[in-house]
Amino acid sequence: MTDAAEVRKLAWAYLSRVAEPPCDEIADLVAEVGPVEASYRVAGGEVSPALAERTAARRSIDAAEADLDLLVRRGGRLITPADDEWPTLAFAAFGGTAARDKPQGRPPLVLWAIGPARLNEVAERAAAIVGTRAASGYGEHVAADLAAGLAEREVAVVSGGAYGIDGAAHRAALAVEGPTVAVLAGGIDNLYPAGHSSLLHRISSSGLLLTEYPPGVRPARHRFLTRNRLVAALGKATVVVEAGVRSGAANTAAWARALGRVVCAVPGPVTSASSMGCHALLRNGAELVTRAEEVIELVGRAGELADEEPRPTGLLDGLSDAEKQVYEALPARGVRSADEIAVASGLPSTAVLGPLAMLEIAGLVRREDGCWRLVRVPAQSR
Amino acid sequence: MTDAAEVRKLAWAYLSRVAEPPCDEIADLVAEVGPVEASYRVAGGEVSPALAERTAARRSIDAAEADLDLLVRRGGRLITPADDEWPTLAFAAFGGTAARDKPQGRPPLVLWAIGPARLNEVAERAAAIVGTRAASGYGEHVAADLAAGLAEREVAVVSGGAYGIDGAAHRAALAVEGPTVAVLAGGIDNLYPAGHSSLLHRISSSGLLLTEYPPGVRPARHRFLTRNRLVAALGKATVVVEAGVRSGAANTAAWARALGRVVCAVPGPVTSASSMGCHALLRNGAELVTRAEEVIELVGRAGELADEEPRPTGLLDGLSDAEKQVYEALPARGVRSADEIAVASGLPSTAVLGPLAMLEIAGLVRREDGCWRLVRVPAQSR
Repeated sequence: MTDAAEVRKLAWAYLSRVAEPPCDEIADLVAEVGPVEASYRVAGGEVSPALAERTAARRSIDAAEADLDLLVRRGGRLITPADDEWPTLAFAAFGGTAARDKPQGRPPLVLWAIGPARLNEVAERAAAIVGTRAASGYGEHVAADLAAGLAEREVAVVSGGAYGIDGAAHRAALAVEGPTVAVLAGGIDNLYPAGHSSLLHRISSSGLLLTEYPPGVRPARHRFLTRNRLVAALGKATVVVEAGVRSGAANTAAWARALGRVVCAVPGPVTSASSMGCHALLRNGAELVTRAEEVIELVGRAGELADEEPRPTGLLDGLSDAEKQVYEALPARGVRSADEIAVASGLPSTAVLGPLAMLEIAGLVRREDGCWRLVRVPAQSR
Repeated sequence: MTDAAEVRKLAWAYLSRVAEPPCDEIADLVAEVGPVEASYRVAGGEVSPALAERTAARRSIDAAEADLDLLVRRGGRLITPADDEWPTLAFAAFGGTAARDKPQGRPPLVLWAIGPARLNEVAERAAAIVGTRAASGYGEHVAADLAAGLAEREVAVVSGGAYGIDGAAHRAALAVEGPTVAVLAGGIDNLYPAGHSSLLHRISSSGLLLTEYPPGVRPARHRFLTRNRLVAALGKATVVVEAGVRSGAANTAAWARALGRVVCAVPGPVTSASSMGCHALLRNGAELVTRAEEVIELVGRAGELADEEPRPTGLLDGLSDAEKQVYEALPARGVRSADEIAVASGLPSTAVLGPLAMLEIAGLVRREDGCWRLVRVPAQSR
């Protein structure tokens, strides 16, 4: 890294910690004077009263070098808007009015990242899979199924690394050696939940671990909610697999909607509390999805359409109405004359012979002594 | 009954059998010359070539008197468009172009009926509940739950009397002594399926058993499909509880849509084949329903709105953003000074004291030797 580049990285790292992200005032200042000058001004207190207030508690703490050292030692990198890897297109959605009207509705200042995947590339073809931590066996099964189906077709699975649905989705993507991205609500050295540290390490080895928080920051409720906007922004669609009525997943879905992303939900038993949030979303316009192909249709390149579900072919499919009527007029057992068939079917006698001949060709009826008999009796169907 | 009234009933009964219903040509002739004259003309063959062909097989069969005798012996009645009980409003939907464009998209000529309920009254406040005969335990449970919820609030449950979802719906309506209507695909003396004859008898004792087919006609595939339009027409909404991708229930839903009725579907596990038809309907614009109240909202009188599902109230609900941020900045164990809280929360020191005071009032934090401590630690939440 050149000295100038390193100075810039240090400035970004300093700015990342000096106020709770996302911070409008810092973003505006950086846009105006660049990160290096912005960091000097913040550190010196030469900023607007609003920014002075937001940075008052932390402006004298300069951990940038230590933070970057820690990140590099773990094989990570700081992704900034100046880097090719910055997902400019994905974050452009924060410019929309619906996003700007929401508190925290801003892109991140920088992203602390570990993992071989390139963020701009995965964001081109990604879907978020999210849901309750208190997932049912059904929910985890469906999350895994969807994630594997997406990852197998090179759609990155973005989620929050949590227990339940998130974990099932990440794990399934890893199992098929597909791309997966976990966005954390704390520092990259503060893997949460602790029970997922091994899973998160695996994600950082083959996919991407991301956070807008500098090292040392611990996950907290408001950070989970703030983090959710990045999960939503990085997926072209957000799929909620299971969620209670008031849940983090519903919050991610709200972000997805505000960012103009497709919101999808997986239905489940109406008797299951963990599907209630999904049903509420579906009643409010979310797309119902049941298979990975349906999600790919929404996030994939043009022309990738889900195959029609294979359908059972009924015995009587392809018959004309008259043929069906004649067929149904035959008794389950025994034979019937053409005249009897006419009466039973309500068709004129002259109109039953043609259909009978067709049914004979189709192997459905058999002639016997001038009368007709069913060749086989299908189950009575509605 | 006056002689004239009896002659008219006999004429309707004759016309009901002479051609497979629904029959445009008979309907047109009756509209033109009345049922009595129409019956004479059909019997005499003095009709259009089209009608002559449709009635050729049966015009010489006059079973009207025997049919009506049988009906009356069973406590039934013939409901004709001339009767007050005729559900004129419900059947007006057949006048729409979407219905007229469908084969069989016509109202019935007459209805053979047994049961104490008045058809015009039940049709004012009714919902169809339909679904697969191969229902799962889940499907039968939900059908029963919905039907009981509707019937308890005097919404008649209309269905087809079949095994599976239909039967579960009828039974639940009967169990709460609510109104229920079964529309048959064969004659009133030909209760189908045989295993439901006791259920259908109970419906005819307290609700209504209906068919457009005269006695003796046996149910057949095309009649089930034709019958479905009456189930759809009599409900203000059609609720599909479980259905395969190609099913009678989907056919009833198509009728409901053509008739301008609300089509509803109950979601289920995406892993269940018997919910596939419901999910396909939901992907095509059907209303997702999970509880009887949501159906009542669609079929009920104006102003009957479903209650909001009761929602769990989180510990931190009602807190301001700053209060949440301060709350989250406190350690799970131990104490922290206001300055430390400012650093951890990213808020200026001057901005943490107000929130701390509010949190103390709310009983969430406690002052201790000039520092602050959490009063209780909620489960970490996203």
